[in-house]
Amino acid sequence: MRIKHLATLVAAAIVTSSFQLPALAQDMAAEDATPALTQAQARTADRLIDAALEDDLAWDILESLTTEVGPRLGGSPAEARARDWGAAKLKALGFKNVRIETFEMPYWERVSETAEIVAPYTQQLKVTALGNSVATPEGGVTAEVVRFRTLPELQDAPLEGFEGKIIFVDEVMTRTQDGSGYGWAVAKRSGAANEAARRGAVAALIRSAGTSAVRTPHTGMMRYAEDVTPVPIAALSNPDADMLVRVMKRADAPVKVKVDLSVMTKTEVQSGNVIGEIPGKTDDIILVGGHLDSWDLGTGAVDDGAGVAITTAAAKLVGDLRGKPTRTIRVIMWGSEEVGLLGAQAYAAAHADELDRHVLASESDFGAGKVWQFRTGFAEDALPKAEVYQKALRRLGVGPGSNDASGGPDVGPLRMSGVPVFSLYQDGSDYFDLHHTMEDTLDKVDLESLRQNVAAWAAAIYIASELEGDYRAKTETP
Amino acid sequence: MRIKHLATLVAAAIVTSSFQLPALAQDMAAEDATPALTQAQARTADRLIDAALEDDLAWDILESLTTEVGPRLGGSPAEARARDWGAAKLKALGFKNVRIETFEMPYWERVSETAEIVAPYTQQLKVTALGNSVATPEGGVTAEVVRFRTLPELQDAPLEGFEGKIIFVDEVMTRTQDGSGYGWAVAKRSGAANEAARRGAVAALIRSAGTSAVRTPHTGMMRYAEDVTPVPIAALSNPDADMLVRVMKRADAPVKVKVDLSVMTKTEVQSGNVIGEIPGKTDDIILVGGHLDSWDLGTGAVDDGAGVAITTAAAKLVGDLRGKPTRTIRVIMWGSEEVGLLGAQAYAAAHADELDRHVLASESDFGAGKVWQFRTGFAEDALPKAEVYQKALRRLGVGPGSNDASGGPDVGPLRMSGVPVFSLYQDGSDYFDLHHTMEDTLDKVDLESLRQNVAAWAAAIYIASELEGDYRAKTETP
Repeated sequence: MRIKHLATLVAAAIVTSSFQLPALAQDMAAEDATPALTQAQARTADRLIDAALEDDLAWDILESLTTEVGPRLGGSPAEARARDWGAAKLKALGFKNVRIETFEMPYWERVSETAEIVAPYTQQLKVTALGNSVATPEGGVTAEVVRFRTLPELQDAPLEGFEGKIIFVDEVMTRTQDGSGYGWAVAKRSGAANEAARRGAVAALIRSAGTSAVRTPHTGMMRYAEDVTPVPIAALSNPDADMLVRVMKRADAPVKVKVDLSVMTKTEVQSGNVIGEIPGKTDDIILVGGHLDSWDLGTGAVDDGAGVAITTAAAKLVGDLRGKPTRTIRVIMWGSEEVGLLGAQAYAAAHADELDRHVLASESDFGAGKVWQFRTGFAEDALPKAEVYQKALRRLGVGPGSNDASGGPDVGPLRMSGVPVFSLYQDGSDYFDLHHTMEDTLDKVDLESLRQNVAAWAAAIYIASELEGDYRAKTETP
Repeated sequence: MRIKHLATLVAAAIVTSSFQLPALAQDMAAEDATPALTQAQARTADRLIDAALEDDLAWDILESLTTEVGPRLGGSPAEARARDWGAAKLKALGFKNVRIETFEMPYWERVSETAEIVAPYTQQLKVTALGNSVATPEGGVTAEVVRFRTLPELQDAPLEGFEGKIIFVDEVMTRTQDGSGYGWAVAKRSGAANEAARRGAVAALIRSAGTSAVRTPHTGMMRYAEDVTPVPIAALSNPDADMLVRVMKRADAPVKVKVDLSVMTKTEVQSGNVIGEIPGKTDDIILVGGHLDSWDLGTGAVDDGAGVAITTAAAKLVGDLRGKPTRTIRVIMWGSEEVGLLGAQAYAAAHADELDRHVLASESDFGAGKVWQFRTGFAEDALPKAEVYQKALRRLGVGPGSNDASGGPDVGPLRMSGVPVFSLYQDGSDYFDLHHTMEDTLDKVDLESLRQNVAAWAAAIYIASELEGDYRAKTETP
C-alpha cells in the first residue's frame, strides 16, 4: 500500500488549535462541579480526531518497525536494534528527553521445534515451544499421548498412571470481542506443564491458546512451579490439534507422538524501555505507550507494533498543537513485556519517586482493531471525568465502559501503586488469530482501524493533559 | 466433528428405488426427440439427492484418507499406502473388479527450503520450492533481488544485466469463483525460472500462485525449457512477498536475499491408478473419480481427497440402488496427477482399445465448495441431453453452463481422444487459499458443501448411466 505522508500536512492545518489556558468555565469547575472541557478545548479534541482519521504516521511507524527491525524477542539483539530504532524515531518526530532506560534480564530463545505422530499413522504436526520451556532430551521424546479436554480435567486426574506419557490438553479457546477468552485459555500454558510434571509425564502438548484456523501454533510465556522437575511443553496449531484428535478417534492402537524441542538460555542479557516526552507546563505526567518487544515467530505488527505506532502518532499529533500541553506527555516503548513484564517492573522501580506525579497511565496492547469502549480505573469520585472522554470519543463509536480497566499489562505495576489508568478497548475478535504466531505481520493491519485508534488516543491524551483535577482517591491526594 | 453413519441407513431407505427398464417414454425418444428420464428415473435421481444430502460416507472417506494416510506425493511411499487404502476402501464399499494399475515415473521430493532477506534488513521469508526445481548449491545462494511486477514484464526485459541476480516475479493472483485466475497465474511457475535462467540469474522467486492471506507458500509443478541451464525456483507466501516489496521500497541499498533449497530425485519409482466398478448391464463405461496423490505440504483434503470422497460416495449411493445400472460405473482414484497427469496418461494408454466404450468421463478436482454450474463437453447434437442433468440438479443451485468443459485434468487425455465429458463446477472462491499449501487439511472442509457435491454427483452418475443415447458426434458414433 502506498501511503502519502498526510499526517504532517493535516497536523499543520490544525496548528492554529492550541492548548488553552484554563478558561473561566473550567476555573469554576470546583471539585463538586461537573468536569468539562472548555468549548475551545472540545473543538481542539475534535480537530485532533479529524486529523488522526487521515493520519499516515502510525502506519509509517508500524511499517518501519516491522520491516526494518522485524521480530524482536525481549533481550535479543533484535530488541536492542528496536530500541535504537525507537530512540531515533522519537527524536526524528521531535520528542524531547529521549532516552533508553536499560535493565538486565534472563534470556530464553527457541532453536528448533518439531513434532509428529509416529503411530499408528504418521503425520507431521505444526508445533511451537512455549516461552521458558525446557528442551527435550537430544533426539526428542516419543511417547503415548493421553488427552484431556480441559485443564481442570487434567488437574482432577490421579497423580499415578501417566508416567512416561505425553499429556495433551485439548482445551479450545473461545473467541470474544474483549479478549476475555484468552484470560482463562492461557492458564493451560503453565498449568499443563506443571500438572504433567507432577504426574511423571515426559512432555506436555496444548492446543494453542489462540483462535486461528490455520496451522500457525501460538507461543507465549509459561512458568514452572517450584515443586516440579520441568518437562518440555509445546503448543499445537488448532488444525494440528484437530488432526491429533482425529487420529486418536480412528486409531485402534495407542497413539504415539514424537516431540523434539531445542532451546537456548542465558542468565543475563540487556533489555530496556525507550522513552520520549512532550514537556508540559507542569511535571505531572500522562504516560502512554505500547511494548516494543515481540514474539519471534511473526514481526510483531499487532502485538505490539500497533500500540507503539498508535500512541506515538497520537502523542505527536498532540505535540504539534501550538504551545505546551499542561501536563507532560511521556511516551514509552516498553521492553520485554512478553517474557514477563520486565520493562514494566524496571520502570516502576526506577520511577518510584515520581509515581505520584503520574496522573494517568495507559498502554495500547491489543492489536489494531477499532476502539469500541473507554474503560477507566479511576477513583470513584473522579468517575464524572470519564464522561468528558466518552463525550469526545463518541463520534468514533467508542462507548462507555466499566471502571475496572487494567490500563494494559505494562501499567499494571503502576496501577498497583495507585496510578489511575484508562483503557481504550479495541475489538479483539480476530486478535488471537494473529497474536503470538507467525501471522502477526503488517499485512493483517487495516489502515482505517489504525487511524481510528490514533484518533481515540490523540483525543484521550489531549483531554488527559488538559482536563483539570486528578483521578486518584481524595485520601491519596489531599 | 462427530459424524454418524447415516449414509448406509439412508441408502437402505431408497433401495426400493431401482434402475428402471427403459420405459415407453424413453423408447420413444428417438434421436430427433427431446431426451428425458422416465418419471420413475426422475424420482430416483431426486431420491439420490435426498440421500446424499444426509450422506456421511464422503466425510468418512475423506477423514480416513487425510488422517490415516495424510500427505501422499506422487511416486512416494505414502502414495503407495494411499493406493492400498483406496483398494481396500473400494472393496469394503462393495465395488467390483477392484485393482491397482501401476506405472513407472521419475520422482522429485523437497528436502529443505529456507529464505531470508539478509540486507539491508534481516527478515525470515516463508518459501517453498516448486515441484521439479533444482536445488541451490550447498549453503544456498545470496544475491541482489530484482523485482518484476508481472511475468510479461520479465519476458520483455533485456537478456543482459541480470547475471548473478535473483529474479522476483511479484504477480498477484486474482481470486475468481471458477478458478480462472489460476490459469494465467500459474504460467509464472515455469516462466520465471526459464526467463531467469536465460538471463544468467542464480535463482528465481515468485509470489505464490495462490490467494492465501497467510504465510503458507504455494507449491506446484514447473518444467524447465530445453534451452536453459536450470536455476532453482521457490514461491513466497503472499505476506512474505509483501514483506520483500516493503523492504525494497524502504531500503536505500540493494536488497539481498539468501535462498537455500535442497531436493532429492529418483529416475524411476512406481505409481498407479486405483480402480473399482459397479458393473452395468452393458460394457459401456461412465468414468468418474478424483486424484489420489497430493502435494506434500498439507494432507490433500481439498486437493483432492474431496474429489476421491465425493465421487466414491456418489457412486456407492448409485450402486446401492436395486439391480444393475445400465452402464458400468467405473470409479478411478488417479495417481500422480500433481506431478504431471501421469496417471491420466497411463490410463489413456492402457485403455486405448476401450475408449470408444467410455460414454462420459469426469473428475472432481476443485475442492469441496458447492457445485454451482453444470458444464458439458458434448457433441453439439447431444447438447439437449445436458438439459436433463440441469433439470435434475437445479434444486441444488446448479445452473446451466457452457459446452467447453474440460471434465477435469485427469480426463484430458480421454477428452483429446474423443471421450465426451462433463464438469460439475464448484465454487472455488476460497480454493486457492488452501490448494498446494500446508493449509490443505480436513478442518477446512464444510460438511454441508461436501454433501451437496455428493448429491450432484450421485444424480449425474445415475443419469449418465441410465439416459439413452450417447454424447459423441454422430460421425464418430455411426
